[in-house]
Amino acid sequence: MEGELKELLTDLKTLKSSLPDRSYQALIDKMQSRLEHLSTIATSGPVQRLKIKDMSAEVVDSNPYSRLMALQRMGIVDNYERIREFSVAIVGIGGVGSVAAEMLTRCGIGRLLLYDYDTVELANMNRLFFRPEQAGMTKTDAAVQTLSDINPDVVLESYTLNITTVQGFETFMSSLRNKSFCPSKEGCGVDLVLSCVDNYEARMVVNQACNELNQTWMESGVSENAVSGHIQLLVPGETACFACAPPLVVASGIDERTLKREGVCAASLPTTMGVVAGLLVQNTLKYLLKFGHVTPYLGYNALKDYFPTMEMKPNPQCSNSACLERQKEYALVKPARDAATKAKMESEAPSETECLHEDNEWNISVVDDTDLQGPDVGKSSGSLPEGLIHELPSADEFQKPPVSEESADPVDDLEDLKRQLEALNSD
Amino acid sequence: MEGELKELLTDLKTLKSSLPDRSYQALIDKMQSRLEHLSTIATSGPVQRLKIKDMSAEVVDSNPYSRLMALQRMGIVDNYERIREFSVAIVGIGGVGSVAAEMLTRCGIGRLLLYDYDTVELANMNRLFFRPEQAGMTKTDAAVQTLSDINPDVVLESYTLNITTVQGFETFMSSLRNKSFCPSKEGCGVDLVLSCVDNYEARMVVNQACNELNQTWMESGVSENAVSGHIQLLVPGETACFACAPPLVVASGIDERTLKREGVCAASLPTTMGVVAGLLVQNTLKYLLKFGHVTPYLGYNALKDYFPTMEMKPNPQCSNSACLERQKEYALVKPARDAATKAKMESEAPSETECLHEDNEWNISVVDDTDLQGPDVGKSSGSLPEGLIHELPSADEFQKPPVSEESADPVDDLEDLKRQLEALNSD
Repeated sequence: MEGELKELLTDLKTLKSSLPDRSYQALIDKMQSRLEHLSTIATSGPVQRLKIKDMSAEVVDSNPYSRLMALQRMGIVDNYERIREFSVAIVGIGGVGSVAAEMLTRCGIGRLLLYDYDTVELANMNRLFFRPEQAGMTKTDAAVQTLSDINPDVVLESYTLNITTVQGFETFMSSLRNKSFCPSKEGCGVDLVLSCVDNYEARMVVNQACNELNQTWMESGVSENAVSGHIQLLVPGETACFACAPPLVVASGIDERTLKREGVCAASLPTTMGVVAGLLVQNTLKYLLKFGHVTPYLGYNALKDYFPTMEMKPNPQCSNSACLERQKEYALVKPARDAATKAKMESEAPSETECLHEDNEWNISVVDDTDLQGPDVGKSSGSLPEGLIHELPSADEFQKPPVSEESADPVDDLEDLKRQLEALNSD
Repeated sequence: MEGELKELLTDLKTLKSSLPDRSYQALIDKMQSRLEHLSTIATSGPVQRLKIKDMSAEVVDSNPYSRLMALQRMGIVDNYERIREFSVAIVGIGGVGSVAAEMLTRCGIGRLLLYDYDTVELANMNRLFFRPEQAGMTKTDAAVQTLSDINPDVVLESYTLNITTVQGFETFMSSLRNKSFCPSKEGCGVDLVLSCVDNYEARMVVNQACNELNQTWMESGVSENAVSGHIQLLVPGETACFACAPPLVVASGIDERTLKREGVCAASLPTTMGVVAGLLVQNTLKYLLKFGHVTPYLGYNALKDYFPTMEMKPNPQCSNSACLERQKEYALVKPARDAATKAKMESEAPSETECLHEDNEWNISVVDDTDLQGPDVGKSSGSLPEGLIHELPSADEFQKPPVSEESADPVDDLEDLKRQLEALNSD
């Protein structure tokens, strides 16, 4: 628009200078001042903030980082500004992934890699982030448009591709390996991969990539009935990988792709997806900036506001060969790591810290929800369409271990772990 | 811009018709077609979706309600479309309130009433919703701009005022009383008030208004160190009101307004605020659409992913006289209500449902977090600036009642309730 207005102005000036008759002068002058005004409006456009070189803790209204840098003064984070060194890959820019991307962008993350092949539709407007005028754009393009406006300091890389195709997987792998953003970094080029996809196949591809690259990642999911979700931390070799304990939807032999084609429209809510994205990015911040406790598995049952947690050991018979390799590597470094952790704990809190049982490393805790079993609870059980299951079991289906005043018994038995995983993680 | 372009076009046509010399015709024609093109661009603007008369469950990409109406097919909600009848008032359009407003807008709520007197600053960009180009606008204007683009079906009313002033309080009260949106509604004109303010004084004003109007509301808050928050349901006469058990920051004699003026910059995170907004609106949807269990009090400790719940009876010695009136009214209707509830429960599940102890109506449950007391937990204790306290106590400060296999003992003693509230709700 600016260009056309400028050319119009040039044409008007040409006309003005070539006209011999001065009686048209006033009208042409009026037109000229109007055009100049329009050019000013068109070029100013929406105000975008400039890039900021260093994060400041100064408490002024114009500082977009003051409330984040305050985390240091409040004693929560040692060095907030380190966030600018980190790269996070988000696979799937839907209801969870787009909000996760916005949160990380507003937190001033160094670099975001975004993967999706889908386009924005009006049917997505019941979740946060995308706007109706973006309908028809690819989700990656729409996300880059919005995120770069929000925070121009974040380096955004978008990949409009399907990671489950051969070509897509190759590009995915090479983008994760690329270390040009931070060449000194150990391992691959990203610090964390967030899986925010909506199907099993894509999760297995992320799992494959992260096992091959020895890359820590976090999984997230929301159930088809929109009222439960989960996040899970996956450290290759150290925790169960996604193939170690396949979720129930696969265990029951149903092909998810078939389900989707049969016209089943999954329900979704901005609330559930917002909560899951918030919990996911909160744990991402804790993991990257080293504060608090990163939860290995956290479920969210929206009907009861119930948040189960658990931890899962890798499966020594996992079908994923890269996972088995990572398990072997971890077994070699584990004794030294345990000794260092023990020494650190003893030096930091010699008398106050309770000694952790070494044979209970994957202490499984199941939160008692007896008091929540009111008449309103679980009333939707069994009302799902055929082939779909609740992400979290209803209270009466849930197998609780006996509650005692001591810490829970270690659950080392693989079958037990698988059974618990199946009960909880079925998205 | 459209107007000025139109006038320019008129001027150009005047010039064209009045010029005797045809040699300028080509130049003027070129200018005219350029102007016409510019007018087309200017008037088209960003594509906005049209209003939709009825919510459809049709599974097509162009239907913004398909994924919400699917909640009916999935058996979660009996009648989703009822959401269009409801009015929700949101007081405070900051980090929690703005996201709550966006969630409700995307869910297709009937009417939203928004209250704030503040302006958008770049310092707010570390939370979701507002965009840098909105800096300088009032939060209410910026919110209406964004929300009406997202969903033109929602009736938006914005009130740029401070509810803690005499004039502001009067307008607040009359806006809540106004029943023109749904004249047949019982009680006042709104179905729920959400308090998303950041200070004690404003919470007490919302409490006063809702006690006077006998209006159910939900309170929300995020701690000054950004890593904990809570939501709470307040039903006048039935649950504790906000004055029944004053939070710890007041109990310890600190004037919150003084704190704010001393240049203490509270930390904030889009994650914590997004989670609190999500939990708040999720419980709002459960309350309005009658599904699941509305949680009376839900805390969120982000460092440990710990979510305490509890319920609080009203204080018979509450300092708020309107609360005492509501308590008297509730005492009169309670026997009949209890009998109806008991009869309904017996008819619905004569043998399966466990009978609730009548003397344990406000069963307090404290979730056991022993297993989360690792070396990373609670390390920020005591590191807050003077006069600030953690919203939630660290694990070792927390007084746990003895855990037994039976349901928790009833906590009817007011002092016990106050102590527990003080420990949990100190924002």
